[in-house]
Amino acid sequence: MMNRRMILIRIGQMLILESILLLLPLIVSLIYQEWSSLTAFAETMGITAVLGILTILLIKPHSQVIYAREGFAIVSAAWILLSLFGALPFFISGEIPNYIDAVFETVSGFTTTGATILTDVEKMSHGMLFWRSFTHWIGGMGVLVLIMAIVPTDSGRSIHIMRAEMAGPVIGKLVPKLKDTAKILYILYLVLTVLQAILLLLGGMPLFDSAVHALGTAGTGGFGIKADSIASYSPYLQWVIIVFMYLFSLNFNLYYLLILRKFVSVVKNTELWVYTAIVFISSAFITYNIFPVYGNFHDSFRHAMFQVLSISSTSGFSSADFNTWPTLSKAILFLLMFMGGCAGSTAGGLKMSRVMLLSKTVRRDIGHLLHPRSVSAVKFEGKTVDNNTIQSVSAYFVLYIFLNACTFFILSFEPFDMETNLSAAVSCVNNVGPGFSVVGPMGSYEGYSDFSTVVLTVAMLFGRLEIYPLLLALSPRSWFTRSNIHRRRPA
Amino acid sequence: MMNRRMILIRIGQMLILESILLLLPLIVSLIYQEWSSLTAFAETMGITAVLGILTILLIKPHSQVIYAREGFAIVSAAWILLSLFGALPFFISGEIPNYIDAVFETVSGFTTTGATILTDVEKMSHGMLFWRSFTHWIGGMGVLVLIMAIVPTDSGRSIHIMRAEMAGPVIGKLVPKLKDTAKILYILYLVLTVLQAILLLLGGMPLFDSAVHALGTAGTGGFGIKADSIASYSPYLQWVIIVFMYLFSLNFNLYYLLILRKFVSVVKNTELWVYTAIVFISSAFITYNIFPVYGNFHDSFRHAMFQVLSISSTSGFSSADFNTWPTLSKAILFLLMFMGGCAGSTAGGLKMSRVMLLSKTVRRDIGHLLHPRSVSAVKFEGKTVDNNTIQSVSAYFVLYIFLNACTFFILSFEPFDMETNLSAAVSCVNNVGPGFSVVGPMGSYEGYSDFSTVVLTVAMLFGRLEIYPLLLALSPRSWFTRSNIHRRRPA
Repeated sequence: MMNRRMILIRIGQMLILESILLLLPLIVSLIYQEWSSLTAFAETMGITAVLGILTILLIKPHSQVIYAREGFAIVSAAWILLSLFGALPFFISGEIPNYIDAVFETVSGFTTTGATILTDVEKMSHGMLFWRSFTHWIGGMGVLVLIMAIVPTDSGRSIHIMRAEMAGPVIGKLVPKLKDTAKILYILYLVLTVLQAILLLLGGMPLFDSAVHALGTAGTGGFGIKADSIASYSPYLQWVIIVFMYLFSLNFNLYYLLILRKFVSVVKNTELWVYTAIVFISSAFITYNIFPVYGNFHDSFRHAMFQVLSISSTSGFSSADFNTWPTLSKAILFLLMFMGGCAGSTAGGLKMSRVMLLSKTVRRDIGHLLHPRSVSAVKFEGKTVDNNTIQSVSAYFVLYIFLNACTFFILSFEPFDMETNLSAAVSCVNNVGPGFSVVGPMGSYEGYSDFSTVVLTVAMLFGRLEIYPLLLALSPRSWFTRSNIHRRRPA
Repeated sequence: MMNRRMILIRIGQMLILESILLLLPLIVSLIYQEWSSLTAFAETMGITAVLGILTILLIKPHSQVIYAREGFAIVSAAWILLSLFGALPFFISGEIPNYIDAVFETVSGFTTTGATILTDVEKMSHGMLFWRSFTHWIGGMGVLVLIMAIVPTDSGRSIHIMRAEMAGPVIGKLVPKLKDTAKILYILYLVLTVLQAILLLLGGMPLFDSAVHALGTAGTGGFGIKADSIASYSPYLQWVIIVFMYLFSLNFNLYYLLILRKFVSVVKNTELWVYTAIVFISSAFITYNIFPVYGNFHDSFRHAMFQVLSISSTSGFSSADFNTWPTLSKAILFLLMFMGGCAGSTAGGLKMSRVMLLSKTVRRDIGHLLHPRSVSAVKFEGKTVDNNTIQSVSAYFVLYIFLNACTFFILSFEPFDMETNLSAAVSCVNNVGPGFSVVGPMGSYEGYSDFSTVVLTVAMLFGRLEIYPLLLALSPRSWFTRSNIHRRRPA
């Protein structure tokens, strides 16, 4: 049987944490004297705090032990509830009057997608805009990892939670103690975020704008606060965001290695270089392709770099309306949506390392056809990859393609053109944000029916949690049969 | 080292066979007194016959033994040369003045794609129209399988050729002797083709039209002889083509089982039922979706069934311009392009059985996550599928998705919209024929540059031969290293 009490306790902790985190947007509302927003935040804080505290007080666990199965269930339940409660401020304040839309916007925030149903973002209150971008920051690294980092006692089994919540095929501990790993990751995350905010401030961006954009970049989310996203900011500010979209789509382990002065390990990281190469090559193609649109190299290159990194890091900011760009540029951006950033970053998508592992496996298989007696292993980052990992990466790929196809199929009941529906599906599953045509960077998801809004909401959650946790949590077998799961989830 | 002499001998035989097959369109030209076409066929016959006979006379094999590696090489070389020579009549007669276009049209024929660069098909001579459709028939079952069926002596190793040329994850022998299997397959193929032609004749279709459409349906090709494909023929004729598109997208083994009166085996064939169910469910959705366009059930249902079977069997005929249909119908047709027909049929695409195997593997893996100690095998058609097959199906899927993505990327250098380029790439890789927008059923591939025409030509060959043979034939390693390959190619 599942250790249901431990699941509830973790969820209780999560609700209390959400209540505390809501203090920040509440303070923003106070500063800007937005009383309706302030009330909405206060009420949501009250509800989540009471529910969280009651859960923790009333439930005593029989055992602290949790397995992968509990890990999946905790992560799935936590993310769903986090979003359902996180949507309340938008709904209570009336700034997003439809609760389904409010949940979409919140899930889009926590999953760091950045797809919006808002048609006029500039009408929102400062408090709500801050909360929107703050959800990106919380969701980027993971809310349960945050609990791990700050809650005093912790059983040693939380690795299952970390693996289920953090994205990418290989999640390693940086240091022997998981709690310390979580702490280090969050400190790095915070430091980089603050650094970006300072650099934006120095470039003349107002304090509020700097904070909000730094939070959105760090989580690779993409919610902006202007109708034209980042387009009206200066080239310097756009370059700062370009650099940080790049930094936040890299494996965070690299930063830890830098601190430890293990420079050789960083230089030897092939995922880093392949990712960087793809970013530059894609930008070069697009620069060439959009040169006639902008007429000079500097603007073309900046817009190309901005959009390539915005899509490959799955942020979704835009410095220009790439929906009006020539087909080649759009096709490159479309393909980059699938790739995503590096494993161990806050980016979504398939992840660079999975793409690399799949390519290496294909090459190995072809070699094997030519030399059936040769025993050639797949090597990645200097280590031999065991067959289980290879198989589970292939299995993940199949599921992932099915997920994209299913989402596209269900969306097709909407009266939009194929480009809109296909790009909306791919963009949401990969947590990118904007798509093409109607859902382009200057558009909105507002036109979708409630039904499709729910479908896209679920698709974003599946994408962010990398399919398995939700799939297993939804399977009745995981709740009603006896079996302990020691095995780690497939990559 | 490769057994290069055997490769050359097989190619020589293939050229002689092509020369003989060209006799049919030559007779058609004679009947219609089209002297320029007749000359073009006669010249091509002469060239192929001389080259073929010279090759066979001059080369004596050291050994008759061939392995998988030789099988791949023979199939790749044979298909490329078959197309390069098969394009000569179009080019020599001047009916397709650009040789690259002529090769595209011929490859589109042999690979049973049915994509055309012609803008006015009704201007073509009867001889050329017959040759175009006849290439579908030859390519559907495979030209080397035809050689196997008719050339007297044959070493026992030809299974490697059959596996490399026929599509689908599992190619079995119907009877112990391969030669007899090839013969049975071709006789079934011929009987069904003649049956369809007779049914079309009975419905009042002219003899020439009946013959040409039966050849195109049998190969699941899709070249028509009217500007509006099948749209101007009567509903009865359209239903005949619907039924035969269905029959030719089923596994041919089933017909052999029917002849042997093994009805239970046929009824137990799950691929058959899943495929049939998908065809009917898709048609139901589309009927509902296009009802407002046609205003009555009968027309809506007929057009829905026609287009669903045309796409799922990868034929590519059309009874209506589905490019103007609502998004849902287009999305369903787009997704069916990937699926294709059943294994062991003349249809292209991923094949139903691969889709089923992938789904079963995913379900098994999810079950394994919940019960890691359970040993659950993937079962298909009543048999346990070994792990090698499962792995190779996943590997094929990865390669297949990469192939679609690469083709789309290269096409994006063209100034068309994304819908055109994406559907053109998917349609050619899966040997369907028409796509959407510019390359829709009433459109043409004529607008693509020579470069893209070559890319699409290669994509069609990769799709028809299921990637591996061409990939291995293109790899220098297979030509210059010593190693025998006994292992069968991955599914």
